[in-house]
Amino acid sequence: MPIEWSGLSPELLLTVDRRRPEPLRAQLEGELRDAIRSGRLGVGERLPSSRELASALGVSRGLVQECYGQLMAEGYLSSRIGSATRVAAGASPPPTRAARPAPGAAPPRLRVDFRYGVPDLPSFPRGDWLWSVREAARVAPTADLDYGHPHGSPVLREVLAAYLRRVRGAAADPEAIVICAGFAQGLNVTLRVLARAGIDRVAFEDPGYDETSAFAADFAGVRVARVPVDDAGIDVNALAATGARAVVVTPAHQWPTGVVLAPERRHALIAWAVEHDAVIVEDDYDAEFRYDREPVGAVQGLAPDRVVALGTVSKSLAPAVRLGWIVCPPALAPAVAAEKIRGDRGSPALDQLALAHLIQSGRFDRHLRRMRAVYAQRRGALVDALAQHAPGVRLTGLSAGFHAVAHLPEGADEDAVIGAARARSVGLYGMSAQRSTHATTPPKLVLGFGNLSERAIRDGIATVADVLNRRS
Amino acid sequence: MPIEWSGLSPELLLTVDRRRPEPLRAQLEGELRDAIRSGRLGVGERLPSSRELASALGVSRGLVQECYGQLMAEGYLSSRIGSATRVAAGASPPPTRAARPAPGAAPPRLRVDFRYGVPDLPSFPRGDWLWSVREAARVAPTADLDYGHPHGSPVLREVLAAYLRRVRGAAADPEAIVICAGFAQGLNVTLRVLARAGIDRVAFEDPGYDETSAFAADFAGVRVARVPVDDAGIDVNALAATGARAVVVTPAHQWPTGVVLAPERRHALIAWAVEHDAVIVEDDYDAEFRYDREPVGAVQGLAPDRVVALGTVSKSLAPAVRLGWIVCPPALAPAVAAEKIRGDRGSPALDQLALAHLIQSGRFDRHLRRMRAVYAQRRGALVDALAQHAPGVRLTGLSAGFHAVAHLPEGADEDAVIGAARARSVGLYGMSAQRSTHATTPPKLVLGFGNLSERAIRDGIATVADVLNRRS
Repeated sequence: MPIEWSGLSPELLLTVDRRRPEPLRAQLEGELRDAIRSGRLGVGERLPSSRELASALGVSRGLVQECYGQLMAEGYLSSRIGSATRVAAGASPPPTRAARPAPGAAPPRLRVDFRYGVPDLPSFPRGDWLWSVREAARVAPTADLDYGHPHGSPVLREVLAAYLRRVRGAAADPEAIVICAGFAQGLNVTLRVLARAGIDRVAFEDPGYDETSAFAADFAGVRVARVPVDDAGIDVNALAATGARAVVVTPAHQWPTGVVLAPERRHALIAWAVEHDAVIVEDDYDAEFRYDREPVGAVQGLAPDRVVALGTVSKSLAPAVRLGWIVCPPALAPAVAAEKIRGDRGSPALDQLALAHLIQSGRFDRHLRRMRAVYAQRRGALVDALAQHAPGVRLTGLSAGFHAVAHLPEGADEDAVIGAARARSVGLYGMSAQRSTHATTPPKLVLGFGNLSERAIRDGIATVADVLNRRS
Repeated sequence: MPIEWSGLSPELLLTVDRRRPEPLRAQLEGELRDAIRSGRLGVGERLPSSRELASALGVSRGLVQECYGQLMAEGYLSSRIGSATRVAAGASPPPTRAARPAPGAAPPRLRVDFRYGVPDLPSFPRGDWLWSVREAARVAPTADLDYGHPHGSPVLREVLAAYLRRVRGAAADPEAIVICAGFAQGLNVTLRVLARAGIDRVAFEDPGYDETSAFAADFAGVRVARVPVDDAGIDVNALAATGARAVVVTPAHQWPTGVVLAPERRHALIAWAVEHDAVIVEDDYDAEFRYDREPVGAVQGLAPDRVVALGTVSKSLAPAVRLGWIVCPPALAPAVAAEKIRGDRGSPALDQLALAHLIQSGRFDRHLRRMRAVYAQRRGALVDALAQHAPGVRLTGLSAGFHAVAHLPEGADEDAVIGAARARSVGLYGMSAQRSTHATTPPKLVLGFGNLSERAIRDGIATVADVLNRRS
């Protein structure tokens, strides 16, 4: 029994195949659409009659007629009474199809990559996450499958508020929390709300998020001022001089220098905010991982009416989860929720509920404890490897998180070191990219060690030392 | 053995409880923070010495010292050499705390709610979704837990492209698809990209998305033109007269009238786009559910270089999933992906992979087949109930989806009918809200029946008929 037919002239080679699960009519329609789109069937061209085509393909005439009817409804074919079916005028392919952008050159495969901002991905607790999603899907009321509360899941907000009070010393009220997709969205939403409130200039730390600040400012339509950071954190006098009425800071572990905002600076920052009716946007990005002592509580806890605190699970779980939160001054919360909802109608409900279950069950804390030990070991490996291979390189910013700053010997060329290491398949990242001036002096590296094994760290640092020795 | 202590003066009533899992030091810190934030401990107020407090609470002096040290680091307390520990100046609560907005009056509980745009939530395939998430978590490579591809998961894009080719007659290339969080985000991202490209005026159908168009336009900073819809769909001559270089249309089942864009209008629309170098944004929102015949293929398939097609699983699965896609003209895809990434760094990876598994395994198609039968029955119940109780009310727009338009008798007062029904716990929604003029004539209702049982539909329509009879 024949199972495949094709027929007609070469330019209208149509094939239907009974072995395929797709109905014959859908196959024929797809073939005809493709022929028209590709230009094999040109505008005005006459199609075979339904009788001819049915006979050529061994299908019923009714099937071909239905198929022609469908493609007329879709605008591919046209037909006038007493005339043949033809390819319709609007259905021609455009004369020049926009060229697809050439794929970028594949990046060379790195043996060791000190990329920052990424946690240990193999440690993502897949089992715990699945358990949490299952619990979420099991107990979620049907109404939770609808568009959700503008602030995000009330269950997650309740759990998060308790968690942030307990772990971050935050003054977190579930009503003032808005769930979002992570730091970037939290910052975008916050800056847009501030822009609507007339705050058109926002200060960022320097060094700090260079690309992020540019993106977020562009997204919200605000201007950026950069404010220097010293060993005690952001320079609040310099901040006041900018005239900005909002600032984005990383008090628990400054990105990228790793300094902790000093107590007197915390007060000065809050005093600045009160005096200028300004808003402090606190990025609490890796406060969960502190090694030498208990994490410093969030500034938000000190001044909940002046601080928007942004949190994320991108570092504590994995970037792929795409969940974060915005702890708002109560007066700002409705506007922040409205902005989030207008942007994307809220974050996925089952993911939100899963995170609530993960935290509530203690699995999140257990994961953090495990990871703290893992990162502490890697941090130790980094310190040891540098001490052994490159004792002249000082490390700072190690009190928390999973990156550190390596101060290269005076006179070392940041770009040259990075280039030489890359030639030996070791990925390094310079401090210059985080400075507003992009200055390469003093030469420093921002070394991420979150997603590197201790062995890879030792291996990579040996290469860095070798590169430095050859150049000195 | 005592397990709970509290001590000191009434205004500094501090409690620690050994039964609680939280370490004593964290408890004490939390208590102190709360006392300072609430104003019970005022600025400059002297704290008991560590020896006094330790004795009052029955804890070690070292614990109190650590606690004080932590709160100094966080800025709550300050201490000078030779002086007592005091509440720091920046730590005072603001004199007037912004009032929390009063919670809106709870909406009256509706017996039957003809709200549109919501699918049957109890039918969400929880088991299939969980299976898909499990598969995703089981097979996802570790690298997928990182920040993802700017366009979204390549696996999902491949599966979606095949699905859209097969089911929607779309010319979908995985490289030109960008995964997003659903229709609203897809539209926001698209309009922002068009705005950057200099398209500052966008046309929307009228009646059509009134609120959505206002939001999206505001989000992207573009102006809105509204273009009338007649029985053949959008009026392309009127569109051309607006001067807009982009239009948002719902060709498969116009929202809210339910008309299908006629073949000649499809051609006219594409000709308009070619002539004006314009972009058609196609909202393919409920094309999966067509009753009387095969769904009309997407306009995107006819003119892939001129059409941005937006899709979502909000109607086919549930709004809570928050996944959708943007099928872009190839030349626009990189800009669309960049805009999406800048907004939120991408959609959740495991959810994307789960959707890929759901579609690839055939479970998605099976669910759609089931739901088509469910909605067809509800549609039948709606038609029957109106024929029985209110034969004077004409229904249109029933060819697809799960809403219909009820044409009320001439002279009926749309708002009065809605109000009277609501007083009897039946939620109705008027066409006026979808018109740019908000005109209440001719009086029409947009009846959503996706999330209502057949019994609820009959019950609700009986009430509507009763309301109409009393008023006539």
